[in-house]
Amino acid sequence: MKLFTYWRSQAAFRVRIAMALKGLAMEKVSLDLLAGDQFAADYHALNPEGVVPTLIDGEGPPLTQSLAILEYLDEKYPDPPLLPKELRARAHARALAQMVAMDAHPFIVPRVRKYLEEELHLDEAARAKWVRHWLDAGSRAIEEVLAHDSRTGRFCVGDQVTVADICLAAHLTSAKMFLGRDPMAHPTAGRIYATCMEIPAFANEHPLKQPDVQAQAKI
Amino acid sequence: MKLFTYWRSQAAFRVRIAMALKGLAMEKVSLDLLAGDQFAADYHALNPEGVVPTLIDGEGPPLTQSLAILEYLDEKYPDPPLLPKELRARAHARALAQMVAMDAHPFIVPRVRKYLEEELHLDEAARAKWVRHWLDAGSRAIEEVLAHDSRTGRFCVGDQVTVADICLAAHLTSAKMFLGRDPMAHPTAGRIYATCMEIPAFANEHPLKQPDVQAQAKI
Repeated sequence: MKLFTYWRSQAAFRVRIAMALKGLAMEKVSLDLLAGDQFAADYHALNPEGVVPTLIDGEGPPLTQSLAILEYLDEKYPDPPLLPKELRARAHARALAQMVAMDAHPFIVPRVRKYLEEELHLDEAARAKWVRHWLDAGSRAIEEVLAHDSRTGRFCVGDQVTVADICLAAHLTSAKMFLGRDPMAHPTAGRIYATCMEIPAFANEHPLKQPDVQAQAKI
Repeated sequence: MKLFTYWRSQAAFRVRIAMALKGLAMEKVSLDLLAGDQFAADYHALNPEGVVPTLIDGEGPPLTQSLAILEYLDEKYPDPPLLPKELRARAHARALAQMVAMDAHPFIVPRVRKYLEEELHLDEAARAKWVRHWLDAGSRAIEEVLAHDSRTGRFCVGDQVTVADICLAAHLTSAKMFLGRDPMAHPTAGRIYATCMEIPAFANEHPLKQPDVQAQAKI
Protein backbone atom coordinates (compact mmCIF):
# COMPACT_ATOMS: atom_id res chain seq x y z
CA MET A 1 0.00 0.00 0.00
CA LYS A 2 1.20 3.47 -0.84
CA LEU A 3 0.83 6.12 1.86
CA PHE A 4 1.29 9.82 1.15
CA THR A 5 2.64 11.23 4.37
CA TYR A 6 4.42 14.17 5.99
CA TRP A 7 6.66 13.59 8.97
CA ARG A 8 5.03 16.10 11.32
CA SER A 9 1.38 15.57 10.34
CA GLN A 10 -0.72 14.19 13.18
CA ALA A 11 -3.20 12.77 10.69
CA ALA A 12 -0.49 10.88 8.78
CA PHE A 13 1.02 9.64 12.06
CA ARG A 14 -2.35 8.14 13.03
CA VAL A 15 -2.49 6.11 9.84
CA ARG A 16 1.14 5.01 10.09
CA ILE A 17 0.51 3.69 13.62
CA ALA A 18 -2.60 1.77 12.52
CA MET A 19 -0.84 0.22 9.54
CA ALA A 20 2.15 -0.75 11.64
CA LEU A 21 -0.09 -2.29 14.33
CA LYS A 22 -1.77 -4.40 11.67
CA GLY A 23 1.53 -5.36 10.07
CA LEU A 24 0.67 -3.80 6.72
CA ALA A 25 3.48 -2.94 4.32
CA MET A 26 3.80 0.81 3.79
CA GLU A 27 5.41 2.41 0.77
CA LYS A 28 5.78 5.96 2.07
CA VAL A 29 5.69 8.91 -0.29
CA SER A 30 6.71 12.07 1.54
CA LEU A 31 5.20 15.44 0.75
CA ASP A 32 6.66 18.65 2.11
CA LEU A 33 3.58 20.52 3.27
CA LEU A 34 5.50 23.70 4.03
CA ALA A 35 6.86 23.74 0.48
CA GLY A 36 3.37 23.21 -0.96
CA ASP A 37 3.85 19.72 -2.43
CA GLN A 38 0.25 18.95 -1.53
CA PHE A 39 -0.98 21.36 -4.19
CA ALA A 40 0.92 19.74 -7.10
CA ALA A 41 -1.33 18.64 -9.95
CA ASP A 42 -0.58 14.94 -9.65
CA TYR A 43 -1.38 14.94 -5.93
CA HIS A 44 -4.46 17.09 -6.48
CA ALA A 45 -5.86 14.29 -8.64
CA LEU A 46 -5.58 11.95 -5.65
CA ASN A 47 -6.58 14.39 -2.92
CA PRO A 48 -8.41 17.51 -4.14
CA GLU A 49 -8.36 18.99 -0.63
CA GLY A 50 -4.57 19.08 -0.71
CA VAL A 51 -4.05 17.40 2.65
CA VAL A 52 -2.32 14.30 3.96
CA PRO A 53 -2.67 11.41 4.36
CA THR A 54 -3.83 9.66 1.22
CA LEU A 55 -3.75 5.86 1.07
CA ILE A 56 -3.66 3.80 -2.11
CA ASP A 57 -4.81 0.23 -1.43
CA GLY A 58 -4.76 -1.74 -4.67
CA GLU A 59 -7.08 -0.70 -7.48
CA GLY A 60 -9.89 1.74 -6.88
CA PRO A 61 -10.12 5.32 -5.71
CA PRO A 62 -7.61 6.72 -3.19
CA LEU A 63 -8.62 6.79 0.46
CA THR A 64 -8.57 10.11 2.30
CA GLN A 65 -9.24 11.54 5.77
CA SER A 66 -7.30 9.84 8.53
CA LEU A 67 -10.21 8.73 10.73
CA ALA A 68 -12.05 7.30 7.72
CA ILE A 69 -8.87 5.45 6.78
CA LEU A 70 -8.55 4.01 10.31
CA GLU A 71 -12.10 2.64 10.07
CA TYR A 72 -11.41 1.24 6.59
CA LEU A 73 -8.23 -0.47 7.72
CA ASP A 74 -10.04 -1.90 10.73
CA GLU A 75 -12.87 -3.28 8.60
CA LYS A 76 -10.59 -4.71 5.91
CA TYR A 77 -7.74 -5.93 8.14
CA PRO A 78 -9.49 -6.67 11.44
CA ASP A 79 -6.52 -8.11 13.31
CA PRO A 80 -5.71 -6.60 15.76
CA PRO A 81 -8.95 -4.63 16.12
CA LEU A 82 -8.77 -0.87 16.71
CA LEU A 83 -12.24 -0.63 18.26
CA PRO A 84 -13.80 -2.47 21.22
CA LYS A 85 -16.65 -4.90 20.52
CA GLU A 86 -19.34 -3.43 22.79
CA LEU A 87 -21.33 -0.63 21.17
CA ARG A 88 -21.04 2.01 23.88
CA ALA A 89 -17.33 1.31 24.30
CA ARG A 90 -16.88 1.74 20.54
CA ALA A 91 -18.67 5.08 20.76
CA HIS A 92 -16.44 6.10 23.66
CA ALA A 93 -13.26 5.22 21.77
CA ARG A 94 -14.45 7.15 18.72
CA ALA A 95 -15.51 10.14 20.82
CA LEU A 96 -12.11 10.33 22.55
CA ALA A 97 -10.40 10.11 19.16
CA GLN A 98 -12.58 12.92 17.85
CA MET A 99 -12.02 15.11 20.91
CA VAL A 100 -8.44 15.62 19.83
CA ALA A 101 -8.82 15.06 16.08
CA MET A 102 -11.80 17.41 15.59
CA ASP A 103 -11.59 19.85 18.48
CA ALA A 104 -7.83 20.46 18.72
CA HIS A 105 -5.91 19.29 15.67
CA PRO A 106 -7.74 21.29 12.96
CA PHE A 107 -6.40 24.55 14.40
CA ILE A 108 -2.71 23.81 14.03
CA VAL A 109 -2.44 22.52 10.47
CA PRO A 110 -0.38 24.46 7.90
CA ARG A 111 -3.29 26.06 6.05
CA VAL A 112 -4.59 27.57 9.28
CA ARG A 113 -1.18 28.85 10.40
CA LYS A 114 -0.83 30.36 6.92
CA TYR A 115 -4.15 32.20 7.32
CA LEU A 116 -3.08 33.52 10.72
CA GLU A 117 0.16 34.82 9.24
CA GLU A 118 -0.91 36.07 5.84
CA GLU A 119 -4.51 37.17 6.38
CA LEU A 120 -4.56 38.14 10.05
CA HIS A 121 -0.91 39.29 10.12
CA LEU A 122 -0.31 37.67 13.50
CA ASP A 123 3.30 37.68 14.60
CA GLU A 124 5.11 34.52 15.62
CA ALA A 125 4.28 34.95 19.31
CA ALA A 126 0.55 35.29 18.61
CA ARG A 127 0.62 32.28 16.29
CA ALA A 128 2.45 30.23 18.92
CA LYS A 129 -0.12 31.31 21.51
CA TRP A 130 -2.91 30.13 19.21
CA VAL A 131 -1.30 26.71 18.74
CA ARG A 132 -0.71 26.47 22.50
CA HIS A 133 -4.28 27.42 23.31
CA TRP A 134 -5.92 24.73 21.20
CA LEU A 135 -3.44 21.93 21.85
CA ASP A 136 -3.51 22.55 25.60
CA ALA A 137 -7.32 22.76 25.64
CA GLY A 138 -7.47 19.39 23.89
CA SER A 139 -5.01 17.83 26.32
CA ARG A 140 -6.92 19.11 29.35
CA ALA A 141 -10.26 17.94 27.98
CA ILE A 142 -9.16 14.39 27.22
CA GLU A 143 -7.27 14.14 30.52
CA GLU A 144 -10.39 15.12 32.41
CA VAL A 145 -12.50 12.50 30.66
CA LEU A 146 -9.88 9.75 31.00
CA ALA A 147 -9.24 10.54 34.66
CA HIS A 148 -12.93 10.25 35.57
CA ASP A 149 -14.20 7.48 33.32
CA SER A 150 -14.34 4.00 34.83
CA ARG A 151 -13.67 2.47 31.42
CA THR A 152 -10.15 3.91 31.33
CA GLY A 153 -7.65 1.08 31.70
CA ARG A 154 -4.14 0.40 30.58
CA PHE A 155 -5.25 2.25 27.45
CA CYS A 156 -7.98 4.85 26.84
CA VAL A 157 -10.77 2.28 26.71
CA GLY A 158 -9.87 -0.86 28.64
CA ASP A 159 -6.68 -2.77 28.05
CA GLN A 160 -6.47 -2.86 24.27
CA VAL A 161 -5.21 -0.20 21.88
CA THR A 162 -8.03 1.61 20.07
CA VAL A 163 -8.36 4.57 17.74
CA ALA A 164 -8.50 6.73 20.87
CA ASP A 165 -4.93 5.80 21.83
CA ILE A 166 -3.74 6.41 18.30
CA CYS A 167 -5.22 9.91 18.25
CA LEU A 168 -4.11 10.68 21.81
CA ALA A 169 -0.53 9.60 21.12
CA ALA A 170 -0.38 11.69 17.94
CA HIS A 171 -1.87 14.69 19.76
CA LEU A 172 0.57 14.57 22.68
CA THR A 173 3.43 14.06 20.27
CA SER A 174 2.45 17.29 18.48
CA ALA A 175 2.14 19.14 21.79
CA LYS A 176 5.66 18.01 22.68
CA MET A 177 7.16 18.84 19.28
CA PHE A 178 5.43 22.19 18.78
CA LEU A 179 5.40 23.44 22.35
CA GLY A 180 7.77 21.31 24.36
CA ARG A 181 4.85 20.10 26.45
CA ASP A 182 5.62 17.12 28.68
CA PRO A 183 2.93 14.44 28.17
CA MET A 184 3.41 13.41 31.81
CA ALA A 185 1.93 16.73 32.93
CA HIS A 186 -1.37 14.95 32.29
CA PRO A 187 -1.30 12.00 34.71
CA THR A 188 -3.74 9.65 32.97
CA ALA A 189 -3.19 10.69 29.37
CA GLY A 190 0.57 10.82 29.98
CA ARG A 191 0.64 7.32 31.46
CA ILE A 192 -1.28 5.98 28.45
CA TYR A 193 1.01 7.89 26.08
CA ALA A 194 4.06 6.30 27.70
CA THR A 195 2.47 2.85 27.45
CA CYS A 196 1.75 3.42 23.76
CA MET A 197 5.27 4.57 23.08
CA GLU A 198 6.61 1.25 24.35
CA ILE A 199 4.85 -0.42 21.42
CA PRO A 200 7.06 -0.54 18.31
CA ALA A 201 4.20 0.47 15.97
CA PHE A 202 3.91 3.76 17.84
CA ALA A 203 7.60 4.33 18.53
CA ASN A 204 8.86 3.49 15.04
CA GLU A 205 6.33 5.68 13.29
CA HIS A 206 7.07 8.71 15.47
CA PRO A 207 7.49 11.89 13.38
CA LEU A 208 11.12 12.30 14.40
CA LYS A 209 11.92 8.84 13.04
CA GLN A 210 10.49 9.50 9.60
CA PRO A 211 12.81 9.69 6.58
CA ASP A 212 11.47 13.15 5.67
CA VAL A 213 12.03 14.70 9.11
CA GLN A 214 13.21 18.30 9.06
CA ALA A 215 15.06 19.37 12.14
CA GLN A 216 14.36 23.08 11.91
CA ALA A 217 10.88 23.43 10.46
CA LYS A 218 9.13 26.58 11.68
CA ILE A 219 5.80 26.49 13.45
CA MET B 1 -33.57 9.28 24.34
CA LYS B 2 -32.55 12.66 25.64
CA LEU B 3 -30.60 14.89 23.26
CA PHE B 4 -28.83 18.04 24.43
CA THR B 5 -28.96 20.35 21.45
CA TYR B 6 -28.63 23.95 20.26
CA TRP B 7 -30.69 25.15 17.32
CA ARG B 8 -27.80 26.48 15.23
CA SER B 9 -25.19 23.81 16.00
CA GLN B 10 -24.18 21.81 12.94
CA ALA B 11 -23.09 18.93 15.14
CA ALA B 12 -26.46 18.76 16.92
CA PHE B 13 -28.29 19.06 13.58
CA ARG B 14 -26.40 15.99 12.30
CA VAL B 15 -27.59 13.90 15.22
CA ARG B 16 -31.18 15.17 14.97
CA ILE B 17 -31.29 14.16 11.30
CA ALA B 18 -29.93 10.67 12.03
CA MET B 19 -32.38 10.09 14.88
CA ALA B 20 -35.31 11.32 12.78
CA LEU B 21 -34.28 9.09 9.85
CA LYS B 22 -34.25 6.10 12.18
CA GLY B 23 -37.55 7.07 13.77
CA LEU B 24 -36.07 7.41 17.25
CA ALA B 25 -37.93 9.46 19.85
CA MET B 26 -36.03 12.59 20.84
CA GLU B 27 -36.51 14.47 24.06
CA LYS B 28 -34.69 17.67 23.22
CA VAL B 29 -32.98 19.71 25.91
CA SER B 30 -31.89 23.06 24.51
CA LEU B 31 -28.72 24.78 25.63
CA ASP B 32 -27.99 28.39 24.72
CA LEU B 33 -24.34 28.23 23.68
CA LEU B 34 -24.01 31.99 23.37
CA ALA B 35 -25.23 32.39 26.97
CA GLY B 36 -22.76 29.75 28.20
CA ASP B 37 -25.27 27.06 29.25
CA GLN B 38 -22.75 24.44 28.12
CA PHE B 39 -20.46 25.34 31.02
CA ALA B 40 -23.05 24.81 33.78
CA ALA B 41 -21.98 22.26 36.39
CA ASP B 42 -24.74 19.75 35.67
CA TYR B 43 -23.95 19.75 31.95
CA HIS B 44 -20.21 19.60 32.64
CA ALA B 45 -20.80 16.27 34.38
CA LEU B 46 -22.28 14.92 31.15
CA ASN B 47 -19.94 16.61 28.71
CA PRO B 48 -16.68 17.91 30.22
CA GLU B 49 -15.71 19.55 26.91
CA GLY B 50 -18.74 21.82 27.14
CA VAL B 51 -20.02 21.19 23.64
CA VAL B 52 -23.18 19.87 22.02
CA PRO B 53 -24.57 17.37 21.27
CA THR B 54 -24.78 14.92 24.15
CA LEU B 55 -27.05 11.91 23.84
CA ILE B 56 -28.47 9.92 26.75
CA ASP B 57 -29.59 6.48 25.62
CA GLY B 58 -30.91 4.52 28.59
CA GLU B 59 -28.52 3.67 31.41
CA GLY B 60 -24.81 4.06 30.99
CA PRO B 61 -22.48 6.95 30.25
CA PRO B 62 -23.59 9.84 28.03
CA LEU B 63 -22.59 9.74 24.37
CA THR B 64 -20.63 12.65 22.94
CA GLN B 65 -19.10 13.82 19.63
CA SER B 66 -21.57 13.92 16.77
CA LEU B 67 -19.78 11.59 14.34
CA ALA B 68 -19.23 9.01 17.10
CA ILE B 69 -22.94 9.27 17.93
CA LEU B 70 -23.89 8.73 14.28
CA GLU B 71 -21.81 5.53 14.21
CA TYR B 72 -23.33 4.39 17.52
CA LEU B 73 -26.88 5.00 16.32
CA ASP B 74 -26.13 3.16 13.10
CA GLU B 75 -24.72 0.15 14.93
CA LYS B 76 -27.51 0.01 17.53
CA TYR B 77 -30.44 0.96 15.29
CA PRO B 78 -29.32 -0.25 11.85
CA ASP B 79 -32.51 0.54 9.93
CA PRO B 80 -32.17 2.52 7.71
CA PRO B 81 -28.38 2.26 7.45
CA LEU B 82 -26.31 5.44 7.32
CA LEU B 83 -23.31 3.79 5.68
CA PRO B 84 -23.01 1.74 2.46
CA LYS B 85 -22.14 -1.96 2.77
CA GLU B 86 -19.02 -2.05 0.59
CA LEU B 87 -15.81 -1.16 2.44
CA ARG B 88 -14.41 1.44 0.10
CA ALA B 89 -17.81 3.10 -0.29
CA ARG B 90 -18.08 3.26 3.52
CA ALA B 91 -14.66 4.91 3.64
CA HIS B 92 -15.75 7.39 0.96
CA ALA B 93 -18.93 8.31 2.86
CA ARG B 94 -16.96 8.80 6.07
CA ALA B 95 -14.26 10.83 4.29
CA LEU B 96 -16.84 13.18 2.74
CA ALA B 97 -18.49 13.60 6.14
CA GLN B 98 -15.12 14.42 7.69
CA MET B 99 -14.18 16.87 4.94
CA VAL B 100 -16.83 19.25 6.21
CA ALA B 101 -17.00 18.12 9.84
CA MET B 102 -13.24 18.21 10.50
CA ASP B 103 -11.86 20.63 7.93
CA ALA B 104 -14.54 23.35 7.91
CA HIS B 105 -16.91 23.18 10.86
CA PRO B 106 -14.35 23.39 13.72
CA PHE B 107 -13.47 26.96 12.72
CA ILE B 108 -16.92 28.48 13.14
CA VAL B 109 -18.02 27.18 16.53
CA PRO B 110 -18.67 29.63 19.40
CA ARG B 111 -15.43 28.99 21.32
CA VAL B 112 -13.37 29.82 18.24
CA ARG B 113 -15.34 32.97 17.41
CA LYS B 114 -14.89 33.97 21.04
CA TYR B 115 -11.10 33.57 20.76
CA LEU B 116 -11.07 35.66 17.58
CA GLU B 117 -13.00 38.43 19.32
CA GLU B 118 -11.53 38.39 22.82
CA GLU B 119 -7.95 37.24 22.27
CA LEU B 120 -7.19 38.43 18.75
CA HIS B 121 -9.49 41.48 18.95
CA LEU B 122 -10.79 40.95 15.42
CA ASP B 123 -13.69 43.20 14.48
CA GLU B 124 -16.95 41.84 13.15
CA ALA B 125 -15.88 42.14 9.52
CA ALA B 126 -12.69 40.13 10.11
CA ARG B 127 -14.59 37.49 12.04
CA ALA B 128 -17.16 37.22 9.27
CA LYS B 129 -14.35 36.90 6.72
CA TRP B 130 -12.86 34.05 8.77
CA VAL B 131 -16.19 32.18 8.88
CA ARG B 132 -16.67 32.79 5.14
CA HIS B 133 -13.17 31.56 4.33
CA TRP B 134 -13.50 28.18 6.02
CA LEU B 135 -17.12 27.47 5.14
CA ASP B 136 -16.55 28.37 1.49
CA ALA B 137 -13.34 26.32 1.33
CA GLY B 138 -15.26 23.32 2.67
CA SER B 139 -18.07 23.79 0.16
CA ARG B 140 -15.65 24.07 -2.76
CA ALA B 141 -13.68 21.02 -1.67
CA ILE B 142 -16.68 18.72 -1.29
CA GLU B 143 -18.23 20.01 -4.53
CA GLU B 144 -15.05 19.20 -6.41
CA VAL B 145 -14.94 15.66 -5.06
CA LEU B 146 -18.65 15.02 -5.62
CA ALA B 147 -18.57 16.47 -9.14
CA HIS B 148 -15.71 14.20 -10.23
CA ASP B 149 -16.39 10.95 -8.37
CA SER B 150 -18.24 8.26 -10.30
CA ARG B 151 -19.83 7.04 -7.07
CA THR B 152 -21.84 10.23 -6.66
CA GLY B 153 -25.51 9.44 -7.28
CA ARG B 154 -28.80 10.82 -6.09
CA PHE B 155 -26.92 11.29 -2.82
CA CYS B 156 -23.21 11.71 -2.00
CA VAL B 157 -22.46 8.00 -2.30
CA GLY B 158 -24.95 6.25 -4.56
CA ASP B 159 -28.68 6.50 -4.08
CA GLN B 160 -29.04 6.10 -0.32
CA VAL B 161 -28.61 8.67 2.41
CA THR B 162 -25.34 8.28 4.31
CA VAL B 163 -23.43 10.17 6.98
CA ALA B 164 -21.93 12.20 4.12
CA ASP B 165 -25.33 13.65 3.18
CA ILE B 166 -26.09 14.41 6.81
CA CYS B 167 -22.84 16.35 7.22
CA LEU B 168 -23.15 18.05 3.82
CA ALA B 169 -26.71 19.20 4.51
CA ALA B 170 -25.74 20.56 7.94
CA HIS B 171 -22.71 22.32 6.43
CA LEU B 172 -24.62 24.01 3.59
CA THR B 173 -27.35 24.98 6.04
CA SER B 174 -24.74 26.78 8.16
CA ALA B 175 -23.28 28.49 5.09
CA LYS B 176 -26.74 29.73 4.20
CA MET B 177 -27.62 30.87 7.73
CA PHE B 178 -24.28 32.50 8.56
CA LEU B 179 -23.39 33.90 5.17
CA GLY B 180 -26.48 33.83 2.99
CA ARG B 181 -24.73 31.40 0.68
CA ASP B 182 -27.00 29.72 -1.86
CA PRO B 183 -26.41 25.94 -1.77
CA MET B 184 -27.27 25.82 -5.49
CA ALA B 185 -24.08 27.76 -6.26
CA HIS B 186 -22.47 24.33 -5.95
CA PRO B 187 -24.15 22.30 -8.71
CA THR B 188 -23.62 18.78 -7.36
CA ALA B 189 -23.61 19.49 -3.63
CA GLY B 190 -26.56 21.87 -4.09
CA ARG B 191 -28.58 19.27 -5.95
CA ILE B 192 -27.93 16.72 -3.22
CA TYR B 193 -28.78 19.31 -0.55
CA ALA B 194 -32.11 20.01 -2.23
CA THR B 195 -32.85 16.28 -2.45
CA CYS B 196 -32.06 15.86 1.26
CA MET B 197 -34.27 18.77 2.21
CA GLU B 198 -37.25 17.05 0.59
CA ILE B 199 -36.91 14.33 3.24
CA PRO B 200 -38.90 15.14 6.40
CA ALA B 201 -36.08 14.01 8.72
CA PHE B 202 -33.85 16.71 7.24
CA ALA B 203 -36.49 19.40 6.77
CA ASN B 204 -38.13 19.05 10.19
CA GLU B 205 -34.86 19.12 12.09
CA HIS B 206 -33.61 22.25 10.31
CA PRO B 207 -32.17 24.78 12.78
CA LEU B 208 -34.83 27.37 11.95
CA LYS B 209 -37.55 24.89 12.91
CA GLN B 210 -36.16 24.17 16.36
CA PRO B 211 -38.04 25.32 19.46
CA ASP B 212 -34.99 27.21 20.72
CA VAL B 213 -34.39 29.18 17.51
CA GLN B 214 -33.22 32.76 18.06
CA ALA B 215 -33.99 35.08 15.20
CA GLN B 216 -31.26 37.62 15.84
CA ALA B 217 -28.28 35.69 17.19
CA LYS B 218 -24.99 37.33 16.26
CA ILE B 219 -22.27 35.54 14.35
